Amino acid sequence: MGETPEADPWTELRRLPMGSRIEIHCADGHRWRGTLLPPHDLSGERVIQLKVDSGYNVGVRVGHRDRFHLLPAEPSGPTEPAMSRGHPHTAPHPGRDVVLLTSGGTIASRVDYRTGGVRPVRDESEILAFYPDLDREGPVRVVPVLDRLSEDISPEDWILLARHVGEAFEGGARGVVIAHGTDTLAFTAAALSFLVESLPGPVVLVGAQRSPDRPSSDGPTNLAAAVRIARSADLGEVVVVMHDGLSDDRFAIHRGTRVRKMHSSRRDGFQSRNGPPLGYLDASGLTWNVAVRPPSPPPVRVDPRLNEHGGLLWFYPGLPPERASAFVRGLRGVVLAGTGLGHVSAVHLPWIREAVERGVVVVMTTQCLEGDVDPFVYSTGRELLKAGVLYAGDLLPETAYVKLLWALARADGPEEVRRLIETDRAGELEPRHVAGAPP
Amino acid sequence: MGETPEADPWTELRRLPMGSRIEIHCADGHRWRGTLLPPHDLSGERVIQLKVDSGYNVGVRVGHRDRFHLLPAEPSGPTEPAMSRGHPHTAPHPGRDVVLLTSGGTIASRVDYRTGGVRPVRDESEILAFYPDLDREGPVRVVPVLDRLSEDISPEDWILLARHVGEAFEGGARGVVIAHGTDTLAFTAAALSFLVESLPGPVVLVGAQRSPDRPSSDGPTNLAAAVRIARSADLGEVVVVMHDGLSDDRFAIHRGTRVRKMHSSRRDGFQSRNGPPLGYLDASGLTWNVAVRPPSPPPVRVDPRLNEHGGLLWFYPGLPPERASAFVRGLRGVVLAGTGLGHVSAVHLPWIREAVERGVVVVMTTQCLEGDVDPFVYSTGRELLKAGVLYAGDLLPETAYVKLLWALARADGPEEVRRLIETDRAGELEPRHVAGAPP
Repeated sequence: MGETPEADPWTELRRLPMGSRIEIHCADGHRWRGTLLPPHDLSGERVIQLKVDSGYNVGVRVGHRDRFHLLPAEPSGPTEPAMSRGHPHTAPHPGRDVVLLTSGGTIASRVDYRTGGVRPVRDESEILAFYPDLDREGPVRVVPVLDRLSEDISPEDWILLARHVGEAFEGGARGVVIAHGTDTLAFTAAALSFLVESLPGPVVLVGAQRSPDRPSSDGPTNLAAAVRIARSADLGEVVVVMHDGLSDDRFAIHRGTRVRKMHSSRRDGFQSRNGPPLGYLDASGLTWNVAVRPPSPPPVRVDPRLNEHGGLLWFYPGLPPERASAFVRGLRGVVLAGTGLGHVSAVHLPWIREAVERGVVVVMTTQCLEGDVDPFVYSTGRELLKAGVLYAGDLLPETAYVKLLWALARADGPEEVRRLIETDRAGELEPRHVAGAPP
Repeated sequence: MGETPEADPWTELRRLPMGSRIEIHCADGHRWRGTLLPPHDLSGERVIQLKVDSGYNVGVRVGHRDRFHLLPAEPSGPTEPAMSRGHPHTAPHPGRDVVLLTSGGTIASRVDYRTGGVRPVRDESEILAFYPDLDREGPVRVVPVLDRLSEDISPEDWILLARHVGEAFEGGARGVVIAHGTDTLAFTAAALSFLVESLPGPVVLVGAQRSPDRPSSDGPTNLAAAVRIARSADLGEVVVVMHDGLSDDRFAIHRGTRVRKMHSSRRDGFQSRNGPPLGYLDASGLTWNVAVRPPSPPPVRVDPRLNEHGGLLWFYPGLPPERASAFVRGLRGVVLAGTGLGHVSAVHLPWIREAVERGVVVVMTTQCLEGDVDPFVYSTGRELLKAGVLYAGDLLPETAYVKLLWALARADGPEEVRRLIETDRAGELEPRHVAGAPP
């Protein structure tokens, strides 16, 4: 057992022969056990490639405070497994299907050549006819849930999808893939991140920026990547998997609460905000950039309640306070997408104060879509904080809105809503950056 | 005269000895005259460095259809000017000041150590005391106009600033710099792009993401870069100049209608959308990425009219149509920030139809903030187009809102507003991507 309590583990690891069996304990509590593989081009700094015992390859970023042990060599262990390059090996899990929920959208649509319109693919046989390789590495069970363009997906649909995710895991699924239109895919991903907890496997949302019968479509490759991740990743989170960059075979895995569609048509239009993607899938396998939540032991927990009395309002110069105030009327909470560090014009202070006094929860985020809000730098922030606005750190405006509907359904009063919002649930915020004064 | 009508001009230009005097006619109508300098590392593909006759260095991107002439050598012309590297030479323009308009914001503020608060710098002597190098290369005339944090800047303030820009050029200014808070700087830049036309020199908006008495402040370097560009660039546009990347001495020049604050606190938080920045300023001088509008002969034209009956509404799943409709009540026009290619849920169709019938101009943009909107791909887009929605191509939502206020002040009815919006005025959109059906 070669524990190295003082030295940099990266230096030590690089000295080990390929094929060594190790167990690495990351400072964040994560633990990996497997066979050391030769590094590949995409590994980058401080990343080792490991063939883990469940059979697939993973890149592990080695922190300074991580520790590892050498394990005894396996009796028949090859020193350089044949599958260290090329397509990642996905271990067969007999009897453990991937469940594919379809909700509509481009990825589950095709052009109807009689009408020229786009129509959704409706059942399992049609999906498998369209994506013939989908079940190559194991069974995929298709469950049609909805039949909508994603601009028409509503919070009620998020609840329905959450129930189906729960049922899939209760039925023994290894992982769940949700084919979804890209327009509001990030909203749905955030909603499922809050509605479904204690995930025994990955929930992978996937879409296509281009229709699947076009040669340039990203549908088939995105879906194949999503299924592969659902089948093989040791992950208990809701993620979005879409093309990364211009490469044909590299996919980014975005955390469901930190992703946004940042281009209306590019294949790589989805981007993680306030941090890198959780990881990537490419021909060499999975590489994680950050610690991810591992699968939880069953049962999955689904609590599909949302309260519709929340809203989202983007500030702009010239927005009359009366118009903003009227927009908020009848709501129990509103997320403001303010400017910069979280500001709105001082002319809005009176209605905000009044709304907070009525018990409305006012949450501040930034329309910059990256970086924290911070009420302590400028007088505007201090005034808004004093008025009772909750400064939600690096929470995206859209994620904050979804979380607000979730919190309103669970809390008795504004203070409890605020407490729920300022507590990280699904990796959506850095809690230390949240600021709020009691109203 | 070595005109080369058939060959690629880039190939021909690379064969010329350094120090050759040339005149290059770009296919976009731009013309440069000067001495060929050695290329530098930042030149990139197809960029020549030219010391132009006004005295400064410029990088010119050579298109395939550009043409050039050789000019006779200057009698005393050095073959390799001493100033080809290092700080760009900015020719003195005797009697032609740069006018610095201050509007408040971090860049023109300092911490008051008695109170701990941030207070604006108020007059010329205080600005020059704070930025002692500002007039090193020529006179800078400081005109305090406003004293506001930029979240408090309103459309009335845009009008005031436009009048001051006009007065500065009427008074013989070479260029105008506007020190402005960063929160709504991009809105003001867009507004001035529409309100001031026929610019005899650059209008450079500049801000600081960090307060000027902090060692990490970007205020002094940003302001120096802005003044240098106002003093030396052959440019008749409104631009935003801010730090680019992590380098200390590289600045991006963004078109005023295509820039957005994309991070709440990073020095390089400003980014051009739907295209690269117009150009860069670094230690080697100015490099243009795209054709820019050259200065117009005086007089400058200022038409400072805006109509306040326009609004901006961001769509999200769960937004009730009644709430959206109420928000739009009383407006003559509204910009929708829809999803993806420009969609909102079909439940919004009735109020949109009704609003268009009442004469409200409804403009569609994308909350992706990059890429075009396009009504022809999905049924939702076709329905919205049929309802009379104007699809505004690659116009940013914020720029579309500013342009709407500008158009409402100039047009007699909705058709004329639509015509104004769909016509490019200041490089803000690709007109061929606009789509609208008469309502």
